[in-house]
Amino acid sequence: MHDFPRINPVRLLDDLRTLRSFGAHGSGVVRLSLSPVDLEARRWRAARMTEAGLDATIDRVGTVFGRSRQAGPALVIGSHTDTQPTGGWLDGALGVIYGLEIAHALAECAATRDFAVDVASWIDEEGTFSSFLGSRSFVGDDIDASLQQARNRDGLSLGDALAQAGLADAPRVMLDRARQRAYLEPHIEQGGRLEAAGKAIGVVTTIVGIREFQLRFTGQRNHAGTTPMAIRRDAGAALVAFITRIDAAFQQLADADTVWTVGRIDLDPGSFSVVPGKADLYLQFRDGNAGRLHAMESALAALADEWNAQHAVQVELIACDGPEEPVVMDASLQQHLAQAAEAVAPGQWVSMPSGASHDAQVIGHHIPACMLFVPSIGGVSHDFIEDTAEADIVRGCDVAARAAAAILAQLRQSV
Amino acid sequence: MHDFPRINPVRLLDDLRTLRSFGAHGSGVVRLSLSPVDLEARRWRAARMTEAGLDATIDRVGTVFGRSRQAGPALVIGSHTDTQPTGGWLDGALGVIYGLEIAHALAECAATRDFAVDVASWIDEEGTFSSFLGSRSFVGDDIDASLQQARNRDGLSLGDALAQAGLADAPRVMLDRARQRAYLEPHIEQGGRLEAAGKAIGVVTTIVGIREFQLRFTGQRNHAGTTPMAIRRDAGAALVAFITRIDAAFQQLADADTVWTVGRIDLDPGSFSVVPGKADLYLQFRDGNAGRLHAMESALAALADEWNAQHAVQVELIACDGPEEPVVMDASLQQHLAQAAEAVAPGQWVSMPSGASHDAQVIGHHIPACMLFVPSIGGVSHDFIEDTAEADIVRGCDVAARAAAAILAQLRQSV
Repeated sequence: MHDFPRINPVRLLDDLRTLRSFGAHGSGVVRLSLSPVDLEARRWRAARMTEAGLDATIDRVGTVFGRSRQAGPALVIGSHTDTQPTGGWLDGALGVIYGLEIAHALAECAATRDFAVDVASWIDEEGTFSSFLGSRSFVGDDIDASLQQARNRDGLSLGDALAQAGLADAPRVMLDRARQRAYLEPHIEQGGRLEAAGKAIGVVTTIVGIREFQLRFTGQRNHAGTTPMAIRRDAGAALVAFITRIDAAFQQLADADTVWTVGRIDLDPGSFSVVPGKADLYLQFRDGNAGRLHAMESALAALADEWNAQHAVQVELIACDGPEEPVVMDASLQQHLAQAAEAVAPGQWVSMPSGASHDAQVIGHHIPACMLFVPSIGGVSHDFIEDTAEADIVRGCDVAARAAAAILAQLRQSV
Repeated sequence: MHDFPRINPVRLLDDLRTLRSFGAHGSGVVRLSLSPVDLEARRWRAARMTEAGLDATIDRVGTVFGRSRQAGPALVIGSHTDTQPTGGWLDGALGVIYGLEIAHALAECAATRDFAVDVASWIDEEGTFSSFLGSRSFVGDDIDASLQQARNRDGLSLGDALAQAGLADAPRVMLDRARQRAYLEPHIEQGGRLEAAGKAIGVVTTIVGIREFQLRFTGQRNHAGTTPMAIRRDAGAALVAFITRIDAAFQQLADADTVWTVGRIDLDPGSFSVVPGKADLYLQFRDGNAGRLHAMESALAALADEWNAQHAVQVELIACDGPEEPVVMDASLQQHLAQAAEAVAPGQWVSMPSGASHDAQVIGHHIPACMLFVPSIGGVSHDFIEDTAEADIVRGCDVAARAAAAILAQLRQSV
């Protein structure tokens, strides 16, 4: 029994490597939600949670939840262990195994042995069936539509997949606000900022909001040899000119963290000899500031209006999916993470937004939430070569454990 | 027996409409080279040529050739009757039926009854198997590679298609320079310049040369949320910026007839959430002036070198197909067409380049060649709705017949 919570690096890395063995492909992992290997991995995690003294269950949607036997207030620590079709071994797995290790570490320390850490492995963050299914179910969102309509790429419905997994009658794990008072999601950065800055820990300030638009340009398809430049209505040329205007407008509004991306362009019909009559571009932009996102959206609409008043080729803005608003991480929880980071790695941590989406953005709407990042080598994620240095993995867990103890100490005082 | 060559508008339009019936799809035509309906149409044309007093043959590659029984010098008049997968009824058919009608008209006129007009219906101008196969075979190009390797979309080889058509042992019709001293190809414009200018006849000055390049941009694929703008190597953004540079450089070099087209853009992997790591654009440019084409090619290479010296995203120029050089139409033949046009339609004709490719560019390398255009309604071609006003069809044939008589009169003097 320690007198302060100490993580066990050997156990931590062993558990991470064992989890990797479920669905390993070279150095990467293929573990799609509710696939046979994913279900096998879920049963293994439930067993490991039981060994850590938690009451473990696999719930109605497939989330593995390990509830501490200690009375609340409880801190929920978790993330997801399902992967993309070509996944990395750490992506969400890191946060789940951190949770397990921290449950061990707090139980092995005299000062924190009564602290309640509930560990969550949310199902389907990656959207094999329906993105953020586990965290959405936990906070009480209506998931009936997903159960009935969501299908994976093979056409298997979510409802059938859960029935085949024997979960049709399992109880749904739901947020207990009286007990579960805060959420911590440790995660790899999935970008290259920490590495570029030479930092070991990122304390997340906000999870950015997202807008996605299809921009359709309609001109006139023509023979590329017989149609003089002066009389063309080239939808592709209009698209290119419009991107230049978007860049100029967004640069006026952006700060260093604002990002925008044209990820796809289609010219129709798409051959050397035909002036495109139709052209589509797919634009995404992200920012941590809701006001800036709205300003960018307004600027885009104004550009389209201005363009249509000036040009024969017309542009139409088509919003794709619903807008995702930014989710601000709880200030007090951020402070605990920062203090723990400064204690473990003085000067080696930084506050930063999360440019990627995480379960914390779902849960953060309901209880105070925070996230801690560790560096991704080369900034690579969603790829078999995704990796993080062992020293960074261990240090990140140490920071998370200290922060968890401090957060719970404060929560217990305020009860 | 007329005392000057007079075309018969009823016979001309009847023949055009009958030819349309082979492969008619609504107002358009689907008559792919060596398809059953194409072969049927070839047999019909051979019979019509025989009725016009020509010695008709379908040769080794499928070209229908009607040789006049008159002694040379001969004028070859023709074009192609094969179509694109969604073809118009006039495209090349117009020039072939003009040839047939002019053979009739000259034979029916006392002053020209001894004049030799050979009528050609070249196979596969559109490249169902191998572009310009008929005219290339006629001028003596090596066609063995095409016979052995060329295949249509169904995977049928050209050699097998010709064998199935019973042509494996047919003789190849070859250019006889001693006899065949000039080539006239009447054609629809396939663009909108005549219509826009309110003109009825185009006298072609040159068939433009063509260059085609794939430009491949190589950057770094990254997560569109977690990769700040400042550290991205976005291949798509580079592509867009480079197109702006191409436009600026080409505008410096262009005249009113120069055209350039970006017909296709591919971003890889092509999704909202990924910064493109690879991007391809497909650029074609055309001009009637060989020097300008070379200058544009040099400018493009210089832009790429300059870009690569300045940017992390690198661009590679990949030449596609062989370069096609411009082919200048014979000045004396152009003059005959202009005089005939002025006689039939005073002030309603114009000299212009051909922005599209034609068999005349193959034959023009070997004997003096010329082309005459009639207007395309709405500038549309390679489409079921392709059409030309009947009055324009008749007037164009009248001009071509007068020009043919004048060309042959001059050729016979110089023998």
